[in-house]
Amino acid sequence: MPLSPEAEAEIARLRATPRPTLRSVSEGMEAHLYRPIPVLDHGFLRVVDYMGDDAAIVQAARVSYGAGTRAARDDTGLIRYLMRHWHSTPFEMCEIKLHVKLPVFVARQWIRHRTANVNEYSARYSILDREFYIPAPEHLAAQSASNAQGRGTPLGADEAARVLHWLKDDAARAYDHYQAMLSTDGQQGLARELARMNLPMNTYTQWYWKTDLHNLFHFLRLRADAHAQHEIRAYAEALCGVVRDWVPAAWGAFADYRLGGATLSAQAVAALKRRLAGETVTEETSGMTRGEWREFVAAWG
Amino acid sequence: MPLSPEAEAEIARLRATPRPTLRSVSEGMEAHLYRPIPVLDHGFLRVVDYMGDDAAIVQAARVSYGAGTRAARDDTGLIRYLMRHWHSTPFEMCEIKLHVKLPVFVARQWIRHRTANVNEYSARYSILDREFYIPAPEHLAAQSASNAQGRGTPLGADEAARVLHWLKDDAARAYDHYQAMLSTDGQQGLARELARMNLPMNTYTQWYWKTDLHNLFHFLRLRADAHAQHEIRAYAEALCGVVRDWVPAAWGAFADYRLGGATLSAQAVAALKRRLAGETVTEETSGMTRGEWREFVAAWG
Amino acid sequence: MPLSPEAEAEIARLRATPRPTLRSVSEGMEAHLYRPIPVLDHGFLRVVDYMGDDAAIVQAARVSYGAGTRAARDDTGLIRYLMRHWHSTPFEMCEIKLHVKLPVFVARQWIRHRTANVNEYSARYSILDREFYIPAPEHLAAQSASNAQGRGTPLGADEAARVLHWLKDDAARAYDHYQAMLSTDGQQGLARELARMNLPMNTYTQWYWKTDLHNLFHFLRLRADAHAQHEIRAYAEALCGVVRDWVPAAWGAFADYRLGGATLSAQAVAALKRRLAGETVTEETSGMTRGEWREFVAAWG
Amino acid sequence: MPLSPEAEAEIARLRATPRPTLRSVSEGMEAHLYRPIPVLDHGFLRVVDYMGDDAAIVQAARVSYGAGTRAARDDTGLIRYLMRHWHSTPFEMCEIKLHVKLPVFVARQWIRHRTANVNEYSARYSILDREFYIPAPEHLAAQSASNAQGRGTPLGADEAARVLHWLKDDAARAYDHYQAMLSTDGQQGLARELARMNLPMNTYTQWYWKTDLHNLFHFLRLRADAHAQHEIRAYAEALCGVVRDWVPAAWGAFADYRLGGATLSAQAVAALKRRLAGETVTEETSGMTRGEWREFVAAWG
Repeated sequence: MPLSPEAEAEIARLRATPRPTLRSVSEGMEAHLYRPIPVLDHGFLRVVDYMGDDAAIVQAARVSYGAGTRAARDDTGLIRYLMRHWHSTPFEMCEIKLHVKLPVFVARQWIRHRTANVNEYSARYSILDREFYIPAPEHLAAQSASNAQGRGTPLGADEAARVLHWLKDDAARAYDHYQAMLSTDGQQGLARELARMNLPMNTYTQWYWKTDLHNLFHFLRLRADAHAQHEIRAYAEALCGVVRDWVPAAWGAFADYRLGGATLSAQAVAALKRRLAGETVTEETSGMTRGEWREFVAAWG
Repeated sequence: MPLSPEAEAEIARLRATPRPTLRSVSEGMEAHLYRPIPVLDHGFLRVVDYMGDDAAIVQAARVSYGAGTRAARDDTGLIRYLMRHWHSTPFEMCEIKLHVKLPVFVARQWIRHRTANVNEYSARYSILDREFYIPAPEHLAAQSASNAQGRGTPLGADEAARVLHWLKDDAARAYDHYQAMLSTDGQQGLARELARMNLPMNTYTQWYWKTDLHNLFHFLRLRADAHAQHEIRAYAEALCGVVRDWVPAAWGAFADYRLGGATLSAQAVAALKRRLAGETVTEETSGMTRGEWREFVAAWG
Repeated sequence: MPLSPEAEAEIARLRATPRPTLRSVSEGMEAHLYRPIPVLDHGFLRVVDYMGDDAAIVQAARVSYGAGTRAARDDTGLIRYLMRHWHSTPFEMCEIKLHVKLPVFVARQWIRHRTANVNEYSARYSILDREFYIPAPEHLAAQSASNAQGRGTPLGADEAARVLHWLKDDAARAYDHYQAMLSTDGQQGLARELARMNLPMNTYTQWYWKTDLHNLFHFLRLRADAHAQHEIRAYAEALCGVVRDWVPAAWGAFADYRLGGATLSAQAVAALKRRLAGETVTEETSGMTRGEWREFVAAWG
Repeated sequence: MPLSPEAEAEIARLRATPRPTLRSVSEGMEAHLYRPIPVLDHGFLRVVDYMGDDAAIVQAARVSYGAGTRAARDDTGLIRYLMRHWHSTPFEMCEIKLHVKLPVFVARQWIRHRTANVNEYSARYSILDREFYIPAPEHLAAQSASNAQGRGTPLGADEAARVLHWLKDDAARAYDHYQAMLSTDGQQGLARELARMNLPMNTYTQWYWKTDLHNLFHFLRLRADAHAQHEIRAYAEALCGVVRDWVPAAWGAFADYRLGGATLSAQAVAALKRRLAGETVTEETSGMTRGEWREFVAAWG
């Protein structure tokens, strides 16, 4: 249960009282506003504010490309054209602000996306809650044999149970000692900025995170990808659903050109052209390295 | 007259139909939305969208500093505290999108503020209008004797008339030739991306410009300053009025701490403390360079 | 002749006196240092400083991915892997600083790449030189019929002569009046910050421009592309030669994966797979828009 | 002892072989190159590369302000002028690249400075070392009574001993279980990307961090400040020594104008002027809030 009763009441209050605005409004996003989408065992993300919609992207493109654009293309076609040709500035005209609750080790991957604004809960000022990410047993997996940074087959039941016991037990003990160090009952009480260092990296934190649609797409391309770690991918996939409702045309273009598309090297282009011409291409004649050829064959047969 | 009748009708239409939203709404900003504020002879700026208000700044600060903050300070006090101690991230939670019409030489100063999103009217796609910035006679001034990058006393009437004649005449001729080069009447017609190079730098362009409140304050501190060139300062001052209506508490803090405040060097701090203690401080005993001392005396007597 | 004799002497002096350093050194780049590469009729670019080389990219990747990487791949293979999988941070570890002389309308395209550091010659402080970009006759072309932002066939000789006459004549007159307005001979002399607005956009300016290799590659992908305007492309192509000498392995990966590669949409991937399986794909069965199909056929036949 | 014998040998090798370069060289920085400066109990920072020196700042300013600047000011005076008037771009022309080993909770504060390039050791790929930050007893302090985010008086010996016991014991147990979960001895072995979540936030990580001098000064102003947490301040102070040796003139200006200077609000300026004129100013007549007055009196008596 990610939110307290007070937080639930606050959300109900905020959603009960629409106010008139002259700004553009995305109906799909209004339905999401303030409502937490559960992610992992104690986390969530929720949209706290937004600016712009598909029309804002088109409007920005048209100030650049002039009125002549209007006749030539409908809005969806123009948005696809912008995505295809790597025009980034029109997508930067839309902005989203999220409130996210997430484990610290996920936050550390997330913050590497630098073109965003962040306000994180400060454990120098405030005391962290007793909440830790404990993976569901089916997400406990062995180190991948083929991918140096990924996970492979699920752990057997005994090993999984052993892991879960340690994760839970160590987190509980670390938090007990965190509280004991902070306590001013019969002692001075350690400073919060020091006590926090005893907590493990699956401790939950929270932040406000704000970015524009172009940078959000970049985040989603990397983090909703099959190679992303499962835990950050869970947040990215929840966000994909939000973006689909917010800017349906831009989402469609992104899904076709970035998520579902492919990037080819000059050698891969040449190999495909030779194949289309009926030639047989081998690793030796492809001009590719071993790793490139392996990825090429995996994708194209 | 900066806007066409079609543009005026579009603005009236956009302002006629408020829609319900669950987002935070700034009443002061709603009154500005879409309406052009005239700047210089043919320019304007108008707010096209915005996100957040004073409460959004406070909300972001409170996620960082925790619930304890709530009792201790009211919102305005907290915003002043954030400004005083250079906390920038809460101010980044507010966003503004402008449509600006401005001379090219002003646009070139403006774009040096890089933390912003821009879509500019493209003279590769579209034909620029016949509009040039011609200064009012009272703004024609001689090179400053004391400030290598500023202007000094107003030009006398004859000299001003001569300058205005050249500015108008050269711009008119350049634009006539721009049109003649583009024309496909009895000739091929030069590409727009080439013809534009004949136009002078007082030609008007336009763009959508979007930034957050922290970066907007930085822009205003430099460009609403007495040392900024008059022409960009005219835009900055129009923007100051917009910000005052949008986020009154943040504006108040900015005006007191940045626009109206002062930055002192270690030497200036020491000199003031000695003066307060009744000592006389001279350039020689101040530890300042000549330029520093001159600025110190200008500010403090 | 882009450089003054004083500048030539200064370059000779700087190149005459190597100094010992413990930093990494790129021999290819040392050969370029300070030497101007002519671009367009009066422009140039020259490398003024740099940091890092191919080894710095590898070193940064290895701090991330650990010692295990070392055995598995040689440096060039690792750099290609990083490029293929959109790892940007190792490329950010290399930095380049350029001195560029370029027409104002080119500078205005260039500066839209915001992740860079810029110091431009200030026409508020200093007087601009009497130098304008006048295209070679073979670069004067008509507006393209098929590309709203491009140029098509070369102008005929008469029309080209007319265009060149106007470009030269208007620039000369504008500069004469610029000087006349600045003059303090028998008059006050207009402030430089005002007089400059009379100059056309083919006036040359200059700046120091510094960026990292990741952002430089992004710049080159867009500006060395066939769709870029000829004039900025001339600078980008000169820069390509510099980068090739600086970081040969990274350049090779960039050339194969970005310049020479292709990006496919989900629909294009599906169409190619159907073709490889022997199917005939038509616009109707491709799921592509008209424009997408046209670009697909142009690329793949 | 922060570095392994292999690392020490590598540093000796790198420092043994100077190579000629035509770039600008900072002698002060050459002495630092590659050498680790110890910070905290197991951490360090070391300069791995740099670009530019005081002369590069001056050179960039002079391209902006023109040759006229040369006569008027010497280099140090020009650098002080730039700092005093908030000119940031010339300082951006210098770049530094560091290798830092630091506890995770320090890394999380550090990374909030977004205008930098980072490559962090990846615990998805590699196994973290058994190293934890354990504060020296004299740095264990109680929560501050007056500062919600700071520390106050040192803990008594008994309480400090209790805290140290928990910190060491919990870290040791967490690391034992981390190893046990990773082990493939008689079990599958948990993926590294999962096992790492059991480690506490005082675990050491390391990264390459690269930024320009303007952003470095901003970092130092906030993190070498008396209000910064002791642990990040230890890194900031080590960096201050490096910068002083690298760009002595810029460092001097920064120390006088930012570290040792003061920022006054409009109300504080007015209050000081009244005092200098012999008036008595009280909280009531100052126009300041209670908090502002308290800080004013603390600074000015």
